[in-house]
Amino acid sequence: MPPTELATTLVVLDLVGIFVFAVTGALVAVRKNLDLFAALVLGGVTGLGGGFVRDVLIGATPPAALADWRYLMVPVAAGLLTFAFHPVIGRLERVVTLFDAFGLALFCVTGALKAVDYGLGPLPAALLGMVTGIGGGILRDVLAGRVPVIFEGALYATPALTGALVAVLLDRADLPLGVVAAAGFSTCLGFRLLALVRGWRAPLPKGPANV
Amino acid sequence: MPPTELATTLVVLDLVGIFVFAVTGALVAVRKNLDLFAALVLGGVTGLGGGFVRDVLIGATPPAALADWRYLMVPVAAGLLTFAFHPVIGRLERVVTLFDAFGLALFCVTGALKAVDYGLGPLPAALLGMVTGIGGGILRDVLAGRVPVIFEGALYATPALTGALVAVLLDRADLPLGVVAAAGFSTCLGFRLLALVRGWRAPLPKGPANV
Amino acid sequence: MPPTELATTLVVLDLVGIFVFAVTGALVAVRKNLDLFAALVLGGVTGLGGGFVRDVLIGATPPAALADWRYLMVPVAAGLLTFAFHPVIGRLERVVTLFDAFGLALFCVTGALKAVDYGLGPLPAALLGMVTGIGGGILRDVLAGRVPVIFEGALYATPALTGALVAVLLDRADLPLGVVAAAGFSTCLGFRLLALVRGWRAPLPKGPANV
Repeated sequence: MPPTELATTLVVLDLVGIFVFAVTGALVAVRKNLDLFAALVLGGVTGLGGGFVRDVLIGATPPAALADWRYLMVPVAAGLLTFAFHPVIGRLERVVTLFDAFGLALFCVTGALKAVDYGLGPLPAALLGMVTGIGGGILRDVLAGRVPVIFEGALYATPALTGALVAVLLDRADLPLGVVAAAGFSTCLGFRLLALVRGWRAPLPKGPANV
Repeated sequence: MPPTELATTLVVLDLVGIFVFAVTGALVAVRKNLDLFAALVLGGVTGLGGGFVRDVLIGATPPAALADWRYLMVPVAAGLLTFAFHPVIGRLERVVTLFDAFGLALFCVTGALKAVDYGLGPLPAALLGMVTGIGGGILRDVLAGRVPVIFEGALYATPALTGALVAVLLDRADLPLGVVAAAGFSTCLGFRLLALVRGWRAPLPKGPANV
Repeated sequence: MPPTELATTLVVLDLVGIFVFAVTGALVAVRKNLDLFAALVLGGVTGLGGGFVRDVLIGATPPAALADWRYLMVPVAAGLLTFAFHPVIGRLERVVTLFDAFGLALFCVTGALKAVDYGLGPLPAALLGMVTGIGGGILRDVLAGRVPVIFEGALYATPALTGALVAVLLDRADLPLGVVAAAGFSTCLGFRLLALVRGWRAPLPKGPANV
């Protein structure tokens, strides 16, 4: 692809990821019987929050999404649609989960590579890639007054960290950006989908917790 | 007014807004039976948190309030007074709500104009104005372990966004700062007070949420 | 001590403080029956979160801990150990509390002095020292879905603020760094341990809260 097409593809993929994340945020608001504004805020926070946390931590402020109205409009559209059609979207839970895995795979790679661009080492960059992927969902759950779902056994952050690490290490090996991104993306997506299909869970603590 | 008087007026207004917001934060602490320190922290977070989030996002760090001891002392005073006299202040709920609307109207305008000063476009600047107005209250509720009250139907963020938008658009039209600020402020305040008087609520989701 | 040894000592102390804080974070995760990943995240957030909040507020991004793999590995080790041996560590609660007081005393001083280095005045610098000491624990509790324990009467933040203030004021008096740090550290540690031994509590609100 010529460079312009590649850039366009990346923006479109990014917007799709933000859209799906925002749908999960707005669904949480609806299921807690919160109002339309909460659906928009939780949608926006879920879609953009991970990137905002990354940008604030690496000093890339103001975050790019604040300079591009498309990035602000996409979660608004997702929030409005989810608020209006939540009974339908709620029944499509499996489709939402699938697309959510896609967004996770995308954000962990783009987040990690942006951190590398800002001069961070491989390990912190991979961590920030993971934060980009999972941060929005954590903020969503905290704002909705529940313990983040990814703390209760779902295998979600580990695929993100693995995909980010693959991308960062291949990037260090000076492979072309397309290869780097595709490898990190596929690793995270494949790992996440396998975990969903096989029912893999993160380990829970054993023994008495003697609170 | 000569410029010095205007600047003094602005600082005084700002401090009044922070004071009232801090009172609402300390009241939440008292009502949750939290300790004096919690009253001070929730007061400080409610009064200054929205501006801190805005400043971190636009890269205006350290936030101005950290460089001016008056901005730090006002929430302390509000927290101490509320902690000591909460039975009286709690009975003045309507007065607190009125002043809170005043603080909201002030912060959404000053927040939006500061974001414009830092080079943000009209839509992101208006969003950050809204964040300046509502962010402190959201942080207060999250720290106090409750779902943000503005997610449950209160018409609070919409007036802030509207007032911020009015200010940003008039500022683009190169009107004098006094006019810009007065118009944004009155829009937000009028909208918020109307919502309170008429009992307007943000829409809640319809239909089964099929959790 | 020659300068190199002093620097090494400081890093070792810092890592010990982060380790203990991370243990308290992972213990909260285990006691809430959250998964291994939650133990690592809550450990990391508790150990590093206070410093991250300080660095973001003073504009020292990316935070130093992100540039040094040792700072990232220590909470991981603490989280893994706590997850595996929580019944033993849980029984050592008093030891953990003791080391936690040590971490608090260390972080309030290093945090305050870093804020001074970034040009903040005495009062904001002392506040940021307190934030460095208590911020990680507050984030831990919010992420774990509970009201921050330090809001419910524990005398924890006041020693941190006092120690930070002592360090900042002595630093202003141009005393040698070793004296400044030792005085601030001892003030906070002594105050905190006295509060623990004597059962001192922060005041709770009096009278009806008329919710």
